Amino acid sequence: MSKEDVGITVSKKDDFSEWYTQVVLKAKLADYAPVKGLIVLRPDGYSIWESLKSTFDKKFAKNGIRNGFLPVLIPESLLGKEQKHFAGFNPEVFWVTHSGTNEVGDRLALRPTSETLAYTLYSKWIQSWRDLPLKINFWNTALRAEIKATKPFLRTSEFLWQEGHTVHTTQEEAEKEVMKILDIYKNTVEEELAIPVTTGKKSEKEKFVGAVYTTTMESIMPDGKALQMGTSHFLGQNFSKPFEVKFADKDNVEHFAWQTSWGVSWRLIGAMIMAHGDDQGLVLPPKVAPTQVVIVPIYRNDEGRDKVLPKVKEIQEKLESKDIRIQIDDRQGLSPGYKFNDWEMKGVPIRIEIGPKDIEKQSMVVAKRYNREKINLEFSEMEKIVSVLDEIQKNMLENARVQSKENTKEVSDYTEFKSKIEEGGFFNAPWCGKLECEEKIKEETGADIRVIPFGSENTDLKCMYCGEQSESVPIFARGY
Amino acid sequence: MSKEDVGITVSKKDDFSEWYTQVVLKAKLADYAPVKGLIVLRPDGYSIWESLKSTFDKKFAKNGIRNGFLPVLIPESLLGKEQKHFAGFNPEVFWVTHSGTNEVGDRLALRPTSETLAYTLYSKWIQSWRDLPLKINFWNTALRAEIKATKPFLRTSEFLWQEGHTVHTTQEEAEKEVMKILDIYKNTVEEELAIPVTTGKKSEKEKFVGAVYTTTMESIMPDGKALQMGTSHFLGQNFSKPFEVKFADKDNVEHFAWQTSWGVSWRLIGAMIMAHGDDQGLVLPPKVAPTQVVIVPIYRNDEGRDKVLPKVKEIQEKLESKDIRIQIDDRQGLSPGYKFNDWEMKGVPIRIEIGPKDIEKQSMVVAKRYNREKINLEFSEMEKIVSVLDEIQKNMLENARVQSKENTKEVSDYTEFKSKIEEGGFFNAPWCGKLECEEKIKEETGADIRVIPFGSENTDLKCMYCGEQSESVPIFARGY
Repeated sequence: MSKEDVGITVSKKDDFSEWYTQVVLKAKLADYAPVKGLIVLRPDGYSIWESLKSTFDKKFAKNGIRNGFLPVLIPESLLGKEQKHFAGFNPEVFWVTHSGTNEVGDRLALRPTSETLAYTLYSKWIQSWRDLPLKINFWNTALRAEIKATKPFLRTSEFLWQEGHTVHTTQEEAEKEVMKILDIYKNTVEEELAIPVTTGKKSEKEKFVGAVYTTTMESIMPDGKALQMGTSHFLGQNFSKPFEVKFADKDNVEHFAWQTSWGVSWRLIGAMIMAHGDDQGLVLPPKVAPTQVVIVPIYRNDEGRDKVLPKVKEIQEKLESKDIRIQIDDRQGLSPGYKFNDWEMKGVPIRIEIGPKDIEKQSMVVAKRYNREKINLEFSEMEKIVSVLDEIQKNMLENARVQSKENTKEVSDYTEFKSKIEEGGFFNAPWCGKLECEEKIKEETGADIRVIPFGSENTDLKCMYCGEQSESVPIFARGY
Repeated sequence: MSKEDVGITVSKKDDFSEWYTQVVLKAKLADYAPVKGLIVLRPDGYSIWESLKSTFDKKFAKNGIRNGFLPVLIPESLLGKEQKHFAGFNPEVFWVTHSGTNEVGDRLALRPTSETLAYTLYSKWIQSWRDLPLKINFWNTALRAEIKATKPFLRTSEFLWQEGHTVHTTQEEAEKEVMKILDIYKNTVEEELAIPVTTGKKSEKEKFVGAVYTTTMESIMPDGKALQMGTSHFLGQNFSKPFEVKFADKDNVEHFAWQTSWGVSWRLIGAMIMAHGDDQGLVLPPKVAPTQVVIVPIYRNDEGRDKVLPKVKEIQEKLESKDIRIQIDDRQGLSPGYKFNDWEMKGVPIRIEIGPKDIEKQSMVVAKRYNREKINLEFSEMEKIVSVLDEIQKNMLENARVQSKENTKEVSDYTEFKSKIEEGGFFNAPWCGKLECEEKIKEETGADIRVIPFGSENTDLKCMYCGEQSESVPIFARGY
């Protein structure tokens, strides 16, 4: 047995951070690359990303969005064209100065995000209203140098993401697009990853540098810290002006276009690990699990093997024909107990155990990973596995909703807030809308405004910090 | 009309290079990025790549290969671990020296290829024979600084590709894998892109730096130049030794593993453009065409529109239900002639024209892009479009085969070779196997050994250069 085969050595409750890292490594989702801040995805980790990618691609396509490709290198002069944007990213940029032994003239940035590059091209591609809306998504990576300790999926200097960039003739259409995307993000994360999210706006302080406003979806993790799960920005004409993204309208008058940009990253995988994992390892929602069902045949000798294996293969075929991703673990020389632990570590949603006695009884043991419940299923009703997987997916979301609710508190008093912030969680607290209060709260408690939920505006409460008329009830929390 | 809407201004025959560039830009497959040597893919270009990706992914998966992710940054010290390999790539490497305002210690290379990075990880992940074979593929980009003029898909400093890296317990298994991959490459390029290829080995001089040997598939382009379409390398233990990719066998003795690596790039798209395009623009093989069928409804007034459009929509639905990718071009204010030219430029395999008279006759005009033939099809037999697409795909490959044969010559005499090399083409010519002759031929004629076709070894001919006993009959050609 290799070192990797040993179970998680800490509990999720006692040392969440160490627990998380062990799950990532021991479930073989990812590993550290030789350069600090960078990670590698192993097939089980990448497969989850591919599953999300495929879901998003279908939803994007339905919404008229197509994919494209942008190179990783952006000239320094171009990156600097939108000043605030540049100032925001500059400290994290990796710079290329040489190719071979030659110095490059204008230094080349490794893309921290592609607005500047995409819009330079868009300005060439768009001439008239006929060319709009232009909606292109790019599946690539972004590079932003991290100085803090590497945390796979959560804090890395290069991360997989998608960045979408759309251009519209009217403000209204662009703002609708921002919301449509946020909605796609929300339903994908809830339906595929079984993680509930809260959607709303970022505060002015927390918005994307260069945006008019940023919409976001946020989740509360089991350790009480908030995680930003994805953002969709209304850029207004902030980029179309410096980058001259203009179109001639039907009346032949030239206008600056209205733009959006939006992205989700492999952070979503980190959130999934945190939300569902337990002390035995990873727990995968069935929809994104690379393997949904594993069958462990149990026998002691050749006679047992001959009895068990044909049935196991029959079940495999039957379930594969129902589009279930299934594996048989017939590895020799490993005990059933070892195999059970191994598949639990990897988070496979259903384990089926079949031994000679089960063959006699014409039934099998079905062990659910998420709640460790075992049920018996007759061979004749094996197709019920499909609905068991559906039920697991649904229950995992329900459980996560309960957990999330438990971690959400309403406060209106700052002293109470300060006393509770250590416990972690989402805090719905009234706020006057002033930067000053937001900054003071951050300084004194470490808590940010994570999101101003839609519908929480225009309250007649008092700001928990200054006591003035509040503007909204944002969610405050300490974040990742 | 924008500048982009004007047709190709040169003929493929007269100025192949300029013709190619115009097709790429005017069919809106790609565009130049702000940094010299880099390009951007527009949705129609990227969609072809996605189609190839999806075909390869299915074939790889059937062969037990899964996908993973590797970061783009590799420390200089790691890249230098296999000496010959490093020397081969060093002049083309982009170097990162700073992140923000901080100097990075060990310079970071932008991945020219990922052997060194992958095998550092493989050496951690592999302990025993149980962990093998390990077969992972990575869809990413490679970065190699190009000093020559940018040529979209053919000569760019960053290119989309896949790189596969497999590890095996025996030499035999690894060599079989090399051939299995080459076979997948060959049948995909022939079946999807309708381009015939010749497979075989590279000479020692032309092999991948670090490989024991390189197998390759090569095609001859209509301008007479050869294009390397993909390579599959047997690495032997050349990397497993310096990178310590070792496994304990069943007897618990440790061995160095046997490895392969292999890749194809977006060059394949360049080859497709060159092989099939004509003076009207791009010609797409149906299997990879983002849009396979476009319907142009033709009418002069609202009455005509009301007559034509319902039928057009009915046909669209019918063909969509047969999984045909279809679009209706009902853009207002553009003439049918303009639309025809536009879709021809974009290479859409079939254009359907339907006007009021066609409605009366209950039939439609079906125009094939590849040979510009028009046929009439009754509405009642519209499902024949499926077989027309199949037939187009088949005929395009056949035509390309004929073209390729015309461009292939047998020579045994060096004087004859020298007199014909200017015309371009593949030259089957006997060779003694010595580097000296290979280098002299290159020096005097500009022709490389592109591939030593399987089965061309052990001839009893005389080397065309030195007259000694020949070892094989390679294909010599000038290349891209």
